[in-house]
Amino acid sequence: MTEEIDADRIQRRIDELSEIGRTADDGVSRLAYTPEENEAFEYLRGEIPDEYTVETDSIGNLFASPTPDAAQSFYVGSHLDSVYNGGRLDGALGVVTALEAIQTLDTVEEEVPYPPTLVVFRAEESSRFGQHTIGSRGMLGMLRIEDFSATDRNGVPLWQAMQEVGLRPSDLTEPTRDRSRVAGFLELHIEQGRVLDEQDTDVGVVTSIRAPVRYRVRVTGKYDHSGATPMSLRQDALVAASEMIVAVEELATEADQDGDIVATVGDVTAVDGAINKVCGKVTFPLDIRSNDEAYRDAVERRILGQFDEISADKTVEVEMEELDRTEPVQLDDDIVSTIDGVAAELDVDHLRLPSGGGHDAMNFQTQGVPTGMLFVPSVDGISHNPEEATDPDAVAAATRVMAEAIRRGPDGGV
Amino acid sequence: MTEEIDADRIQRRIDELSEIGRTADDGVSRLAYTPEENEAFEYLRGEIPDEYTVETDSIGNLFASPTPDAAQSFYVGSHLDSVYNGGRLDGALGVVTALEAIQTLDTVEEEVPYPPTLVVFRAEESSRFGQHTIGSRGMLGMLRIEDFSATDRNGVPLWQAMQEVGLRPSDLTEPTRDRSRVAGFLELHIEQGRVLDEQDTDVGVVTSIRAPVRYRVRVTGKYDHSGATPMSLRQDALVAASEMIVAVEELATEADQDGDIVATVGDVTAVDGAINKVCGKVTFPLDIRSNDEAYRDAVERRILGQFDEISADKTVEVEMEELDRTEPVQLDDDIVSTIDGVAAELDVDHLRLPSGGGHDAMNFQTQGVPTGMLFVPSVDGISHNPEEATDPDAVAAATRVMAEAIRRGPDGGV
Repeated sequence: MTEEIDADRIQRRIDELSEIGRTADDGVSRLAYTPEENEAFEYLRGEIPDEYTVETDSIGNLFASPTPDAAQSFYVGSHLDSVYNGGRLDGALGVVTALEAIQTLDTVEEEVPYPPTLVVFRAEESSRFGQHTIGSRGMLGMLRIEDFSATDRNGVPLWQAMQEVGLRPSDLTEPTRDRSRVAGFLELHIEQGRVLDEQDTDVGVVTSIRAPVRYRVRVTGKYDHSGATPMSLRQDALVAASEMIVAVEELATEADQDGDIVATVGDVTAVDGAINKVCGKVTFPLDIRSNDEAYRDAVERRILGQFDEISADKTVEVEMEELDRTEPVQLDDDIVSTIDGVAAELDVDHLRLPSGGGHDAMNFQTQGVPTGMLFVPSVDGISHNPEEATDPDAVAAATRVMAEAIRRGPDGGV
Repeated sequence: MTEEIDADRIQRRIDELSEIGRTADDGVSRLAYTPEENEAFEYLRGEIPDEYTVETDSIGNLFASPTPDAAQSFYVGSHLDSVYNGGRLDGALGVVTALEAIQTLDTVEEEVPYPPTLVVFRAEESSRFGQHTIGSRGMLGMLRIEDFSATDRNGVPLWQAMQEVGLRPSDLTEPTRDRSRVAGFLELHIEQGRVLDEQDTDVGVVTSIRAPVRYRVRVTGKYDHSGATPMSLRQDALVAASEMIVAVEELATEADQDGDIVATVGDVTAVDGAINKVCGKVTFPLDIRSNDEAYRDAVERRILGQFDEISADKTVEVEMEELDRTEPVQLDDDIVSTIDGVAAELDVDHLRLPSGGGHDAMNFQTQGVPTGMLFVPSVDGISHNPEEATDPDAVAAATRVMAEAIRRGPDGGV
């Protein structure tokens, strides 16, 4: 068994990171490829023991290892970017606890079969570019050339944003690390849901990861004067879009009773909207997720069918641009069993559950790297919000479990 | 009868004005108190005959008269600002035709009982500050001190915007002109609805003006992760706001069958919205109009009642900030009869109708100034849109009617 982890050091690092990109609401805005994300990477680099070998790849991911020459290494980590006005824990906690687990393992006398490498990813959140897990996909060679043309709300493309923070990426679609030397991947993350909190359980052993299908929806009607256009003669794009947003929620709520599904419209833009106009153009994103791809596709068809009916009824046009279609991922059985077993041995409350959110971890499993995840409770299930919080005791317990799981290795030391 | 008006001069001035603030869609964005609005005023000033006396008041309105010393004058005019990406005719046509009518009257030998004054208003549209008819209200002493604190979408208050375009307003709530010398007010405007176009009629004789009650609505739910928050546990502000927007349209459409009413949500903002969040805060404006104040108030109560039900059902909070509550206005009987009679004598197709939109004219009637309005057809009823258009023959006919109505004076020459 590993030595005790340093719970105070974890909390200090989380506190210090939360100052970077801090918002008026005490949240953090540390968008992908911004000076704030850069600053968080700089901070983290300063916390890594001097004797570790530190490298940065062309995507901007950071790798740190006490034993860089090991034939195969167990990768552990998470990301440092955030959504707009997000919380202090999403991503950052996984990075800080991974570093803590690795530092704890430094004190182990016996040899660790797969020595750990800390990995800190760029750009996990899709808030800025509508593209998720850019850092881990880049490391694994999963990005396509066209992904680099994705733009933020100001029209800045990803490749330009990367250059603006000092990166000079080349060979962008090639893996940045030798995958044959990656023995496994482990990530600790806040649950971002309410299951652990409601069951008062410290550690979640993640079995699978929900994956999204995503669209940008454009609704086109007709601009008119709000005071002079009779109700019967309108082609109001905002009313049609609103009916679609309501339909998404109704269909998903209904489907959620029969299977695992969530569907969300989290934003909306009334183009050239004004108090005294009937709005003629509206866009919004649509995000549908499940652990069950076939069920997700069925609900997606129902939603799209409903959109067609609304657009016919309201005499508006609807255009669907598919942004993403990711397959749900089953995590590695051996690692799931190892985490489960270690938690039991250490007498830490735990339960198995699926992940609602997407994570860098899913890309490793998809690429054939044995992968596991640990969740800690989100108080009230709150996430992507300044009020994100987790009991420090749960964090310490989960970090202990993670350190021991790293020590045993992806195959559980069998 | 007056001489023929110069239809080509009207079209040339409209064409030249449409170049100022021109948008990519061939529309105009000439927002209140912007350099574009200033430029339009400069252009118009250059078109006024040298022998006219031109004055600008502290609000930025422009007055021009060939006979400034008349004891009482018939004021004629409209505004030069536009909505975001609006059309070339809304406001500008009323200014250009007023100047044309006055120039035509210069050729009349006999004495005009109430010599005309051209008036060009600032800031009629509420697009920028959520405040309508700032120029005419300012001229008539109808602005309150707090109106000057209204802000645009960038947080710039009205008083600062006025200073930024070179105005140095003082005594802001006092009338800028001597009302006892204003004998009447006349305004020509595009209909912004479909009645004249559908009935193939050149001139509308406006009998009354619909007035708005306006709110800013704020809906507060809870931000959450879109992938990890089950449908049943959400307090989705965007879904609740969408239900409200749909309810406004449904209630108004139903009420429209029994009386004169329109209700519109023309914009919406998802605060900190993102593809991967459940949105916790949404705001939108609400605009309800009728010629019948009691009926409008009844429909307003129905809408607000429905909002309360939705907010209870969706466990979100709704907050209503009243921005405006204007009374509908009946225009002056004598002027309405004069316009009607002149159109008949000149053999111009015409019909009486109410105005759907609010106009500077309503403020004059409210302040006891005898007021009339002429409408010209909006092709397809389109307005607040780059595609605004009116047949030049209809414009020429309406200008002829207006010139003759000015010659006869507010009391019809009785």
